[in-house]
Amino acid sequence: MDIKDDILESYGRIYPFIHNTPVITSKTIDKMAGAQLFFKCENFQKMGAFKMRGATNAILQLSPEQKLKGVVTHSSGNFAQALALAAKNLGVKSYIVMPSNAPEVKKSAVRDYGGEITECEPTLKARESTATKIQQEKGATFVHPFNDFNVILGNASAGKELLEKHPDLDFIISPIGGGGLVAGMALSALAFGKNCKVIGAEPFEVDDAYRSMESGKIEHNITTNTIGDGLKTSLGDITFNLINSHVDKIIRVTEEEIIAAMRLIWERMKIIIEPSSAVALAAVLNSKSEFANKKVGVILSGGNVDLKKLPF
Amino acid sequence: MDIKDDILESYGRIYPFIHNTPVITSKTIDKMAGAQLFFKCENFQKMGAFKMRGATNAILQLSPEQKLKGVVTHSSGNFAQALALAAKNLGVKSYIVMPSNAPEVKKSAVRDYGGEITECEPTLKARESTATKIQQEKGATFVHPFNDFNVILGNASAGKELLEKHPDLDFIISPIGGGGLVAGMALSALAFGKNCKVIGAEPFEVDDAYRSMESGKIEHNITTNTIGDGLKTSLGDITFNLINSHVDKIIRVTEEEIIAAMRLIWERMKIIIEPSSAVALAAVLNSKSEFANKKVGVILSGGNVDLKKLPF
Repeated sequence: MDIKDDILESYGRIYPFIHNTPVITSKTIDKMAGAQLFFKCENFQKMGAFKMRGATNAILQLSPEQKLKGVVTHSSGNFAQALALAAKNLGVKSYIVMPSNAPEVKKSAVRDYGGEITECEPTLKARESTATKIQQEKGATFVHPFNDFNVILGNASAGKELLEKHPDLDFIISPIGGGGLVAGMALSALAFGKNCKVIGAEPFEVDDAYRSMESGKIEHNITTNTIGDGLKTSLGDITFNLINSHVDKIIRVTEEEIIAAMRLIWERMKIIIEPSSAVALAAVLNSKSEFANKKVGVILSGGNVDLKKLPF
Repeated sequence: MDIKDDILESYGRIYPFIHNTPVITSKTIDKMAGAQLFFKCENFQKMGAFKMRGATNAILQLSPEQKLKGVVTHSSGNFAQALALAAKNLGVKSYIVMPSNAPEVKKSAVRDYGGEITECEPTLKARESTATKIQQEKGATFVHPFNDFNVILGNASAGKELLEKHPDLDFIISPIGGGGLVAGMALSALAFGKNCKVIGAEPFEVDDAYRSMESGKIEHNITTNTIGDGLKTSLGDITFNLINSHVDKIIRVTEEEIIAAMRLIWERMKIIIEPSSAVALAAVLNSKSEFANKKVGVILSGGNVDLKKLPF
């Protein structure tokens, strides 16, 4: 198996259904960081996050029979919307299991994209059992938000696009939640980078991935008191193994550093990113010696924020 | 005098000092508007607003002797920062008269750009007399924020760039404050458009320009209770005459419409614009029959917001 071919094949499948998002720069932030930063703007991706890439690739890998019966996932966040929209684009039915306490705005976005919502108790167990029931009753195929190699390969396309524009990056840094994004970056750096190291960024408050790298097994979070609401999930076995093998290190950041980085991007770059996305810039700014005078790709993973709940 | 040559000459002077800002589109907003909208992103301009264009052109028109003695203006808003930064870029001293109640963040931005601030009472009279004093004492040249033909010609470069990319626009719509932006759009539409009409957008709360067009003379605002804080100013004689001759009409919008349009751009386009900029989209959305199935250039004039004072 050649990973470069795999990524190129995925890209060939998904590119009509995604945006090749822009890469932007900021002299002011470069000066503050003491490095050259290249921001890959997945906040401008369809439905507002990189998750469109993996969701689209996963559905496109299904057989015609599977497509007829639809797809199912459980998610309270961006992946729910991504799978619903990707399915709609491809003429496939989608069943989305959402916890009953998910914000109405997210439910209505899923509905707008044509997803059929099944509500359940807000526990992982209830989410999983509800999804399993739909799989059995409808014959729908389960698509995991991150612990799925096709999803990761789809995500890798963001790294491919970035390295195509800037082949000489020394680093790519991305947030870590379930690990599907950073694992995709690791694969694309292997395939298209020139000694490009991949680094994960994670809030101290949910540093399960950092601890998993230390202990050599998947660790979990007891509490999840972070503003980075996309980063509360633990790793899966597929993402853990890829991260363990191919991610150079994980840098942790405080909540204050996340908010400051988010404000910096909003105020200086005039673009909207969600708190989870600010974690990557926060890590660059709290570890300046690591990145001094280097070329660093910074993945801005998404731009879906609740304007009524801003941290400023 | 050929206006096309004038704009091209100005552009030749200023282009090394400004950004040719991107033009972006949104399928969702097009569907809502029933028209094809082309957003000219001056929120991504240097210092975050179109005012860099006019300020730079005005300074570049000075004689070497005038440049040696510096420039002066009075402003509490974007023009203060624009003149300070444009002057700094061109190695010219700038004196900025600001009302004592101007927000500290704006004063500090002017200082960062090398502007020398003189504070005065927060009245137009005090601002004008303080600026006059500096003109006399320092020999500095006064640059008006909008009622100056060179400033307007500089602003026109935004319309030139937009029409270069989209030569077949039916309309360009821009906010009206003092009128320097919409007058620039009118000149660029004359020079580079094909029957491209220019429309101004103004809050009902400060509809002095609308009333000026009705009465045929410059009208003023008694109250200024609008969130569009860049639009409170009355027209000057130069902008009034240009608008009277070359602007097709002025559409007024409510405060609720401004906030809804601002939210739409933030949430759907994931970019940060200031409230004054949202007025143009608000006008398109409240006058759909006017723009049905037309190609409309929408000027997003700036992106400088106080994140602590958002209307959401």
